[in-house]
Amino acid sequence: MKSITDYTKDELLAYQESLQKEYEGYKEKGLKLDMSRGKPASSQLDLSNELLKKPEGLYSENGLDVRNYGVLDGIPECKKLFSDLLDIDAAQMIIGGNSSLNLMYDAMARLCLFGTQGEKPWKAYDLEGTPVKFLCPSPGYDRHFTICEALGIEMITVPLTENGPDMDIVEELASKDPLIKGIWCVPLHSNPEGICYSDETVDRLVSMKTAAKDFRIFWDNAYGIHHIYEEVSLKNILEAARTYNNEDRVLYFFSTSKITFPGSGVALLASGLENIKEIKKHMSAQTIGHDKINQLRHVEYFKNPEGVKNHMKLLAEELRPKFDMVTSKLEEHLSGTGLATWRSPKGGYFVSVNTLPGCAKEAVRLAKEAGVTLTGAGATYPYGNDPEDRNIRIAPSYPVLDELEAAMDIFCLCVKLASTKALLNK
Amino acid sequence: MKSITDYTKDELLAYQESLQKEYEGYKEKGLKLDMSRGKPASSQLDLSNELLKKPEGLYSENGLDVRNYGVLDGIPECKKLFSDLLDIDAAQMIIGGNSSLNLMYDAMARLCLFGTQGEKPWKAYDLEGTPVKFLCPSPGYDRHFTICEALGIEMITVPLTENGPDMDIVEELASKDPLIKGIWCVPLHSNPEGICYSDETVDRLVSMKTAAKDFRIFWDNAYGIHHIYEEVSLKNILEAARTYNNEDRVLYFFSTSKITFPGSGVALLASGLENIKEIKKHMSAQTIGHDKINQLRHVEYFKNPEGVKNHMKLLAEELRPKFDMVTSKLEEHLSGTGLATWRSPKGGYFVSVNTLPGCAKEAVRLAKEAGVTLTGAGATYPYGNDPEDRNIRIAPSYPVLDELEAAMDIFCLCVKLASTKALLNK
Repeated sequence: MKSITDYTKDELLAYQESLQKEYEGYKEKGLKLDMSRGKPASSQLDLSNELLKKPEGLYSENGLDVRNYGVLDGIPECKKLFSDLLDIDAAQMIIGGNSSLNLMYDAMARLCLFGTQGEKPWKAYDLEGTPVKFLCPSPGYDRHFTICEALGIEMITVPLTENGPDMDIVEELASKDPLIKGIWCVPLHSNPEGICYSDETVDRLVSMKTAAKDFRIFWDNAYGIHHIYEEVSLKNILEAARTYNNEDRVLYFFSTSKITFPGSGVALLASGLENIKEIKKHMSAQTIGHDKINQLRHVEYFKNPEGVKNHMKLLAEELRPKFDMVTSKLEEHLSGTGLATWRSPKGGYFVSVNTLPGCAKEAVRLAKEAGVTLTGAGATYPYGNDPEDRNIRIAPSYPVLDELEAAMDIFCLCVKLASTKALLNK
Repeated sequence: MKSITDYTKDELLAYQESLQKEYEGYKEKGLKLDMSRGKPASSQLDLSNELLKKPEGLYSENGLDVRNYGVLDGIPECKKLFSDLLDIDAAQMIIGGNSSLNLMYDAMARLCLFGTQGEKPWKAYDLEGTPVKFLCPSPGYDRHFTICEALGIEMITVPLTENGPDMDIVEELASKDPLIKGIWCVPLHSNPEGICYSDETVDRLVSMKTAAKDFRIFWDNAYGIHHIYEEVSLKNILEAARTYNNEDRVLYFFSTSKITFPGSGVALLASGLENIKEIKKHMSAQTIGHDKINQLRHVEYFKNPEGVKNHMKLLAEELRPKFDMVTSKLEEHLSGTGLATWRSPKGGYFVSVNTLPGCAKEAVRLAKEAGVTLTGAGATYPYGNDPEDRNIRIAPSYPVLDELEAAMDIFCLCVKLASTKALLNK
């Protein structure tokens, strides 16, 4: 098969005409398909419906009435469940409300308002006109970038490699600039690339010299057990940090939003003991405690880490055909064309596609016009600015399989159409 | 009956001796009774147990799967329930998580981080060494004061009258000092005094001139429907503010923490439309949305405002004998002694007792030693500093009636004992 990038102008024109015809056909169908967000499908949520019948008990194992006030950091059995699942000491953990994003935002807001461990509040830098900066491995998660933007934190894009952020660049930047106060990481099945951090990356992150004493790794392990094709192991970052006496550098986040119910799950934060002490002090002014009934619900439902892992296998079976569909459609339509590259993830929630430079926005626009909503092009980069306009995030979880098939046919067509336009404009 | 304040020294000494003997007797019993916090009793929580079996449905009336992501400000039927109950336009309302305290803290933190309507962030004043100030009608709610202290906001104590804060003082202060940025209010069955704001107070609060453009009334209507003896009506502050084109001055908070389950209820925030728009913008970086399943649970359980009000009647029946017990014990032991005054609240969660000056701390200490835990003396004032050391907050909801009876006998004895000590030291 001849790569389309090698077509002559006439060949391109003829090809474009046939694509355009096909495209018009789709438009007439008036479809409405959504691959924009990492939303679970209803069939996936159904797998957790037993949770709605919980709790059967009313008391925590320490005798506390879970219906009443009390307990800032979570009931003991809930901490134990996640402690065992993630191999994190329960004393280093705070169980939050329904959203790890909320825990991340609040953690960043506290650093802005109060600073940490006696260092200057980050908001002070902003007010002085020299805002602090965060390293943002990209493509990454748009909501992380939104937190930085909302709180006046400057973002520096760092490339991702197969093994995580390019650590040579990270070390270089972090060691020199004291205004660089941290880095965002989605260490397993990353959003959207599906990249899994290597042991070396984890070690280098916790051991590297940083010019800022209050450098923080925002470790969003959102897909920590969300394997679809293959179980990938991730080095325990808190354990690794401990060997460098550096646990307070790490703020570890996890949630059941994509395990049980988004919006009604349980989120957690873990860190070094000094941080946890400081965070609890701040939190104690903010709330009396989070929803303990929901914590007990989750404990009763899962019982133990095996229960969680078995549940994840059922979810993987729901998701696998959808990921199969996406990659096989990409293969069918775009393989050998020279118009796009993509990664086949081992887990997580996304497939990341890279078009020819300058084609992502147009492909997304065309798809939208034909009834297929994708994540906005550029959203996977800080400030929504993909410097090469190449990256598109596909979220296959929400549509049913038939819809997904149709949506992928249209998506691939739109990539081709946008590409021929770009090639003709060269 | 001769007032104890009129006793001769010899009479006082003899009286103290008999009190001390009685006190030692209680100490020997080794009781453990808690009247420290406004925690509902288990019997009260049992009244909401049906809620645990909800929801039966999975979809919001707008077709949204409540198990999934989406909806920042609450499902429509939940907004409608509270809109009808509190007579607040649903468009002016955001349904939050489980805690109105959390909504208050976050609202204050946003004012510190971002300012509002283009005004300077309050944190900037703090960093410049001239922190902003809040008016704190006192005795008041300790957790309000903790929020100010945590966020570096200076507190100015304002006396409470029968009709709410002393508005002459409030107007005088707010009109002159642009650093005074707001006031805390618990307008109905206030914590701890049980004071209900008059219509005039409400009108003056929303219409007064304030030197600060960004003056905010934190309107914590925590006991807005928590009538025990008598239904007291409260002027609708948002409606009143509307006539002065001043709705954004008001941040209105409410929750079901003391209606259904503390920690697993539903909280809300209401304000003018400009504020709501601004808050939603900030919130959209913080979370995708709060627990919609729990919102639906509450709607299914209550159905309509009548359902809530009927539920409140059951709760009042639970609480009334306890409040009866507290006031009858105060009457029995302290009436005519000249040693204490108290208010008989019409609703809410507390009874506020004022001792002779300089006796509250000692009475609380003595009670603690005899096994009765009360809210720390001073807690009802900013910085924990009751200038006259007189106010003690009694929280009768948590103990069962027998315990409460014993606890009140001991409490009254401790007030007498502390008083005689003080009188003898004069």
